[in-house]
Amino acid sequence: MNTAVLVNGEARDAVSSADRGFQYGDGLFETIAVRDGRPLRFARHLARLRRGAERLGIVPPSAAMLEEEARQLCKGTPRAVLKIIVTRGPGGRGYACDATAAPTRVLRLQPWRERSDDYARHGVAVRLCHARLGRNPLLAGIKHLNRLEHVLARREWSDEFAEGLMRDDTGDVIEGTMSNVFTVAAGALHTPDLSACGVEGVMRAVVLEAAAQLGLETRIGRITTDDLARAQEIFLTNSLIGIWPVIRLDRTVEGKSEAAFAPGAVTHRLQETITDD
Amino acid sequence: MNTAVLVNGEARDAVSSADRGFQYGDGLFETIAVRDGRPLRFARHLARLRRGAERLGIVPPSAAMLEEEARQLCKGTPRAVLKIIVTRGPGGRGYACDATAAPTRVLRLQPWRERSDDYARHGVAVRLCHARLGRNPLLAGIKHLNRLEHVLARREWSDEFAEGLMRDDTGDVIEGTMSNVFTVAAGALHTPDLSACGVEGVMRAVVLEAAAQLGLETRIGRITTDDLARAQEIFLTNSLIGIWPVIRLDRTVEGKSEAAFAPGAVTHRLQETITDD
Repeated sequence: MNTAVLVNGEARDAVSSADRGFQYGDGLFETIAVRDGRPLRFARHLARLRRGAERLGIVPPSAAMLEEEARQLCKGTPRAVLKIIVTRGPGGRGYACDATAAPTRVLRLQPWRERSDDYARHGVAVRLCHARLGRNPLLAGIKHLNRLEHVLARREWSDEFAEGLMRDDTGDVIEGTMSNVFTVAAGALHTPDLSACGVEGVMRAVVLEAAAQLGLETRIGRITTDDLARAQEIFLTNSLIGIWPVIRLDRTVEGKSEAAFAPGAVTHRLQETITDD
Repeated sequence: MNTAVLVNGEARDAVSSADRGFQYGDGLFETIAVRDGRPLRFARHLARLRRGAERLGIVPPSAAMLEEEARQLCKGTPRAVLKIIVTRGPGGRGYACDATAAPTRVLRLQPWRERSDDYARHGVAVRLCHARLGRNPLLAGIKHLNRLEHVLARREWSDEFAEGLMRDDTGDVIEGTMSNVFTVAAGALHTPDLSACGVEGVMRAVVLEAAAQLGLETRIGRITTDDLARAQEIFLTNSLIGIWPVIRLDRTVEGKSEAAFAPGAVTHRLQETITDD
């Protein structure tokens, strides 16, 4: 398939270079799996987009309009990725916003990136990144367009790892460049607190709810790199990959030896529990 | 005048919504004063752009090409603002870059924003902002496109202040939303250390050099909000405004009373020393 794009409802790829998304990264995005013509967990993605827009003071496009445009774009597509970008729109004087400007919405239907089914079944190798995340509660949790930290982290490796894990400036583990991270230790599920940095993934919320249903004890808090190395299981989540067990953790950046894991029972139970809906 | 735009050398305003500048804020910018058809301090701006590109791993457009396009755009314009944006270009798989993609360059010649000459002569009122700057040496100093912190800070007031000052998460004063900040205290010139956050302004460097020429003692380090309030003089700098004395500092966000200043002798000497070249 080719990429299909709607900008403010029109079939075109171009945006103005005066758009604040381009000028300042002043906006938000969602990356959504599409199957059989349908964007999966669409309501959750729209809810996160709305939360982000509230935080940034952007009036988001209506859910009905985004649903209609997504339906139009995804129709007849067996498998794809729908990316939605919403920016504060064009203009303003410098950083000051033009209160009359309408937000820009871009829907891009992109080819599904084949990832080996082996990744979900047999697990992936990940590295610890040099690049850190700055801490700022103002922007934490939401999926905004200021993504240079993640871009620079992703430049640290080529294809030898499936993902890289990022720490904040205190050394705590926060997330992967494109995923959230969970560990299983002492029978409980752990995932980093994202109140100062990191993105609250839709799949992270799905996993936390599934864990509650399964009666798994869950702790959201600090995770150090030593906690990672000592964990019984580690897995990664996002809306496109679902759940990937981690089987190898490269800690070269810390001068420490590699840690190895087997895809574990808890990871497997969560994979089984989570469906496409 | 109308805004004139060159995108990769062509007279058009549009960029692709797949451009990494739009998708991730993956790029850099410069904002340059234009007088009598000539971008001022152009070599310094290009040098900073080059330093930023090195940090991000972007191959910048050649200086010769940018000079030629700037010359073409600015020709015959008595007064304007030239904004140059350079991004990593389109594409890549998610955060991973496409090494073959050429950077995107956008030159926008925008109307000069009349600022009262009174500002430079009689000084301005500024506020201390709620919005903080996250600390990340990876991105500190360079003028990259991830500017949400500054956008959110600028949303805290309308026209009642000329500028807002931002602190990092430890409470140290770092910069204005669009300017660098200096104080004069105990006969020395002070300006914040920008190794963890903030933008190293071209005018900041010009002022530091002028101070050295004048034999002024200069200290780059920590500045607290109490240091600000106790300063003999405060002034702001950027390439468009030059030097603005601060005469009023609103510290409502700290629950502290307003501080007042008179435009001082050191500020005045620096204003006199700095020319357009």
